[in-house]
Amino acid sequence: MSPRIVALGGGHGLYATLSAARRITPHVTAVVTVADDGGSSGRLRSELDVVPPGDLRMALAALASDSPHGRLWATIIQHRFGGSGALAGHPIGNLMLAGLNEVLADPVAALDELGRILGVKGRVLPMCPMGLSIEADVVGLESDPRVSRAIRGQVAIATTVGKVRRVRLLPGDPPATHQAVDAIMNADLVVLGPGSWFTSVIPHVLVPQLVAALRTTTARRALVLNLVAEPGETAGFSVERHIHVLAQHAPNFTVGDIIVDSSRVPSEREREQLRRTATILDARVEFADVCRPGTPLHDPARLAAALEGVLQRGATPTGRPPTVPTPTVNGPRGDDPWR
Amino acid sequence: MSPRIVALGGGHGLYATLSAARRITPHVTAVVTVADDGGSSGRLRSELDVVPPGDLRMALAALASDSPHGRLWATIIQHRFGGSGALAGHPIGNLMLAGLNEVLADPVAALDELGRILGVKGRVLPMCPMGLSIEADVVGLESDPRVSRAIRGQVAIATTVGKVRRVRLLPGDPPATHQAVDAIMNADLVVLGPGSWFTSVIPHVLVPQLVAALRTTTARRALVLNLVAEPGETAGFSVERHIHVLAQHAPNFTVGDIIVDSSRVPSEREREQLRRTATILDARVEFADVCRPGTPLHDPARLAAALEGVLQRGATPTGRPPTVPTPTVNGPRGDDPWR
Repeated sequence: MSPRIVALGGGHGLYATLSAARRITPHVTAVVTVADDGGSSGRLRSELDVVPPGDLRMALAALASDSPHGRLWATIIQHRFGGSGALAGHPIGNLMLAGLNEVLADPVAALDELGRILGVKGRVLPMCPMGLSIEADVVGLESDPRVSRAIRGQVAIATTVGKVRRVRLLPGDPPATHQAVDAIMNADLVVLGPGSWFTSVIPHVLVPQLVAALRTTTARRALVLNLVAEPGETAGFSVERHIHVLAQHAPNFTVGDIIVDSSRVPSEREREQLRRTATILDARVEFADVCRPGTPLHDPARLAAALEGVLQRGATPTGRPPTVPTPTVNGPRGDDPWR
Repeated sequence: MSPRIVALGGGHGLYATLSAARRITPHVTAVVTVADDGGSSGRLRSELDVVPPGDLRMALAALASDSPHGRLWATIIQHRFGGSGALAGHPIGNLMLAGLNEVLADPVAALDELGRILGVKGRVLPMCPMGLSIEADVVGLESDPRVSRAIRGQVAIATTVGKVRRVRLLPGDPPATHQAVDAIMNADLVVLGPGSWFTSVIPHVLVPQLVAALRTTTARRALVLNLVAEPGETAGFSVERHIHVLAQHAPNFTVGDIIVDSSRVPSEREREQLRRTATILDARVEFADVCRPGTPLHDPARLAAALEGVLQRGATPTGRPPTVPTPTVNGPRGDDPWR
């Protein structure tokens, strides 16, 4: 039986995870951040009452059928209008999602319908059924480096020259898309990251129903770290710092595995240090060659191999775990030698 | 065997013919004018290099499958964006056609692909594979009523307060879409009109390859007259004047039948006069109840009944006419008692 994989994230990072996951199983669900306020998504949000479609569109394209029609529509939805007029820069898929949402008055129904056109195996879901904003506490913007300022908006946070300390969602405690909660609860493997740490990865653990599902699902949980620190929001961040800030934002949240590209942590001394840090998430660390050589991108085949390894470790000998989840928050998990 | 029907026109008139024709056969081809410069189509033409999509989109909606998916997508492509921003007023289908055309670089391929999504039985084709303009000679705009002025643009012509004498396409003698020529040559019935006379009906006979196909096809040809004179381009026009101006624009063009709503020509004296006028198109006149009572619109079921009557008269006793057309330009047609 094909495993059920849920991938949480946004943007290019999520695209990479989905490209890997679809190699393992047709049962892939993307759960996507909804706080983008830049580019086409930002223009559409300011014009129409719409969940920002850009990251959702990317996820649909990543899961499009490998048939001629699927490939054609993946190309079509990703195509951006040319020219220099009112449409310039809008990907066709963003306009289709915005339009479907106006007609169907339901972002999930809109995604399911566009997914049907693309022959998507699996599903693309917004983490929350409404658009959100992100606000960050940022230091280093004033002459006094201790002074923290609140910076609002995904683009502003992603490009800040200051240091991001903490992010929060606006409105706070937003509802999760219930289909996303169901998918997490019924998954065999849940993958968080890679992606823009503060704006695509951490937002998921700030949605109360989502983090509750992540804590209680019987699925194996993996965290995929970024290959490089990003200019702006994580400039200069060490591998360890990525783990620390995630843990800060989601107390009691744990994962089974952290997947790190081998080349990012070459020495055994550094690896030992990372293994120690990983214990704050109750995680083992998997050093794997997941990078596409010569690029800062994850290679789908290599990432798939790493995820398959995680899946194999997570499988219980008697088959699928019971569907009624056992709360594991704060609880010992001594039954799993890898945790 | 189901007959093959080709309907030529644009806008709401063509929508009516297609809604009628689809009741008779699944083999319906729409051949659509491409000179619209108003509304969403006009905005898209001025922004992108695109065949004006509005009338094409309407034709696709008219031929959409009666399945749940077909009905949903007919609703979706017809839905206009709300708000007051850059997208406001654009039907989703116009944006999809413009985008498909950018990706596929072929307006026919774009229409076929969107038609596939809508489950269209049959096909929608532009009369010409590029956008055109219309220019009209209009009198009555100056104090001297004999002075003629050239008015350019479909919207300007459709709304002129003067009298339209003649229209021409810019650029002149444009190429026909070759698939449209093929459809006409292989049709059992070709229907021209109803619709805005100067801007949706006559443009077809100004495309040399199209009018040549209309002259030489073995298909039965029917002209459907409008139910009312339109404010603007045909204000005050009699039924006869519609026929005269069409004949002026297409010398040697003939049709087998002219379908007129009975209520438009109530008296026998007027009907006799119309029959005489119809001889300039070599046509018999069919007086039929084709109007939806209480509206200025054609009723699809009633128009379908009238077209079926025409089809029955046109069928040769031995079956389908030979596919190699016999040129009939200027020739006698004594073999057909109805002509």
